[in-house]
Amino acid sequence: MVQVKMSRKMKISERAAVAKAASIRLGAVKTEVKNAALNEIAKALLENGARIVEANQRDLEAARTSGLAAPLLKRLKFDEGKLADVCAGIHSLIKLPDPVGRTLGAIEMDEGLELYRVSCPIGVIGVVFESRPDALVQISTLCLKSGNAVLLKGGSEAAHTNRILADTIAQAADAAGLPAGWIHLLETRQDVADMLALDEQINLIIPRGSNAFVRHIMSRTNIPVLGHADGICHVYIDADADLEMAVRLTVDSKCQYVAVCNAAETLLVDADVAPTFLPQVQAALEACHCRLKGDDRTRAIIPIELATEEDWSTEYLDYTLSIKVVDGLDAAIDHINRYGSGHTDAIVTADREKAERFMNLVDSADVFWNASTRFSDGYRYGLGAEVGISTNKIHARGPVGLDGLVIYKWKLLGKGQIVADYTGPNARKFTHKKLR
Amino acid sequence: MVQVKMSRKMKISERAAVAKAASIRLGAVKTEVKNAALNEIAKALLENGARIVEANQRDLEAARTSGLAAPLLKRLKFDEGKLADVCAGIHSLIKLPDPVGRTLGAIEMDEGLELYRVSCPIGVIGVVFESRPDALVQISTLCLKSGNAVLLKGGSEAAHTNRILADTIAQAADAAGLPAGWIHLLETRQDVADMLALDEQINLIIPRGSNAFVRHIMSRTNIPVLGHADGICHVYIDADADLEMAVRLTVDSKCQYVAVCNAAETLLVDADVAPTFLPQVQAALEACHCRLKGDDRTRAIIPIELATEEDWSTEYLDYTLSIKVVDGLDAAIDHINRYGSGHTDAIVTADREKAERFMNLVDSADVFWNASTRFSDGYRYGLGAEVGISTNKIHARGPVGLDGLVIYKWKLLGKGQIVADYTGPNARKFTHKKLR
Repeated sequence: MVQVKMSRKMKISERAAVAKAASIRLGAVKTEVKNAALNEIAKALLENGARIVEANQRDLEAARTSGLAAPLLKRLKFDEGKLADVCAGIHSLIKLPDPVGRTLGAIEMDEGLELYRVSCPIGVIGVVFESRPDALVQISTLCLKSGNAVLLKGGSEAAHTNRILADTIAQAADAAGLPAGWIHLLETRQDVADMLALDEQINLIIPRGSNAFVRHIMSRTNIPVLGHADGICHVYIDADADLEMAVRLTVDSKCQYVAVCNAAETLLVDADVAPTFLPQVQAALEACHCRLKGDDRTRAIIPIELATEEDWSTEYLDYTLSIKVVDGLDAAIDHINRYGSGHTDAIVTADREKAERFMNLVDSADVFWNASTRFSDGYRYGLGAEVGISTNKIHARGPVGLDGLVIYKWKLLGKGQIVADYTGPNARKFTHKKLR
Repeated sequence: MVQVKMSRKMKISERAAVAKAASIRLGAVKTEVKNAALNEIAKALLENGARIVEANQRDLEAARTSGLAAPLLKRLKFDEGKLADVCAGIHSLIKLPDPVGRTLGAIEMDEGLELYRVSCPIGVIGVVFESRPDALVQISTLCLKSGNAVLLKGGSEAAHTNRILADTIAQAADAAGLPAGWIHLLETRQDVADMLALDEQINLIIPRGSNAFVRHIMSRTNIPVLGHADGICHVYIDADADLEMAVRLTVDSKCQYVAVCNAAETLLVDADVAPTFLPQVQAALEACHCRLKGDDRTRAIIPIELATEEDWSTEYLDYTLSIKVVDGLDAAIDHINRYGSGHTDAIVTADREKAERFMNLVDSADVFWNASTRFSDGYRYGLGAEVGISTNKIHARGPVGLDGLVIYKWKLLGKGQIVADYTGPNARKFTHKKLR
């Protein structure tokens, strides 16, 4: 605990340097030791439960006084139920395989000269999240399991809760023998601005929050950012769709939970089936109290509000859906690649070839055939733990599990071999025999 | 040919948009078609050989007139030998497996709901290289094989050579049925500045050239950069080293080829063996005409120049080596993590435990035990083709093969499943059965 409290008096660049040094040692800590530390952290959180909930009460009171909106108050709340949830999360994390130290490939370059590609932590991760204090526990334990040091900045309205959570985690990890200085809590906006400038010390930024928040972070750093700003997801109803299935998938993609990035925002309908399909889907969506906006061709079939150009790029995160009639598969693909956010897009069709064309040509992290866009999620994908959802085109894409927090190094084990022996007229030949 | 010539009149942002559209289609082109196009490209280069060499003569004459230094003239030269080399490179590339469309993982989420993680191209790659025109052929064909569109900028002194090479490649690819607009040649510094600002259209930048050049590029873009600026590589001679082997590995790491990033720049010697080892290694290095600079403890044993603080961070790329005496393994690790560039570092020791500690704690892309740092190379690693060497901590690290030019997408194949059925009190359970 001492170390985290002391750390708060240090400059961010100093804390990042401490974190970097700690990350080197944490990267070599054995799985059993990391799991034992995670177990101690869960125990310490439960033992400090009353104090944590009390700290959260102070945050909640201040937030109520300052007039924070009800949904944000709900996200800020950290009670016994939330505590039990994060501890259950830690115990699931303990059971996951260690992403560090896995041999990803091995080759014999020559007799007695063996090359191994081995997974290792990325180094120092900077995490910035909005009000939910449970994110602090989730992300710091994910970093621990994957051997990364972490600098965390939570919402200022959760300051008391975040402090006691970070102190509890640091102290328990300390007691379990982990290298000190692997976790640091930042508290001000200036701290974040300072951190985002430290591209020499910090290897990856993970923002968690609204799309405006994520976009704000992305625009202010040269450090790679893992995440997504928008989730403008599409469902395309092909001419060869089973229309009953198409209605079901549209309703689920749009209405099963509207406030999330993998909910659909635009429905594209092939002109051939639009006259039959649109009235059916309208009835089903309106039964869910979903507001509909359409282009002229849609409105010629069902009487709904007009969708403007802006609608095609809007993530409503609400019971609102824009609808467009398109002339076939390629028009749908073009619309998605133009207006989409590269997150999750689905086709409904009975035609395998058209489905394959859609999945190959739609340039998105997740491309679905006859399934709801809402399946795009780390837990549903069986990743065990979700670090975030990425719309990046390098490193990790779509739902990211623990694997997204590691990279690899090349280990070459020799017996004194030199390159001079492998060059020139009498050069030894490499065998390049695959070992694994 | 028309398309590349026309493209030169378009704005860079327009060319990037054309490239992005082409990249979508190129990403879905079958292996056989890409390989046939590569074959046509090699044929066209040979057929246009006389014209290419003639264009290169004009570049060489202009360069001689303007007083370009001899080593740069040598790099600029593109004669029949170079032409044969790049064509041989293309034929090797044809034989390599397609990095696109590989199933990296597959899971059954539930009966009839199957999730596949499939490799796909990154999208649009921006490549900036210095004088060698052969780099244009290598990198554009690597991009083609991996299904990526490419914007290329070569050295202005090679303008005529680059034009005819790019035109020949584009025309041959066109004739082979590849989507037009996948390759664009940029010609001015302003073009490069414009390109580096297009982080919406361009997904990855690959700079090829001197470390100053790469650092220049890295500091001017928000687009991810694959590469390395410095190659400050170390050889550490442990107390338990076979000293004869240690001399051999030091000489090879330093002197086998000095002008490259994986040549050693600093030698670290455990104090216990320094009195015996230093005179031996001095004799061997001086026989190679290598200049030696040492810290005070080194100079107390062998009479060489003084190394200053700056030397530990200097990439000589020459017959110069800095030497430091350290107190054991951990001091060596600390020195490397502080002054190194995260490229390639080697330990010489007979002690497996110390070797493992070194390889785990040195935070570099390539960590070697009893082998020359000069082995750090894509061809020697058996990658088949080398895109570059990366000191990044995400996506790809160390020597990067074709795999570094792809990412993946998630394809979910369902039969109409909705998320609502997997939530609530009677929720269906995911099976999460591994398929592959």
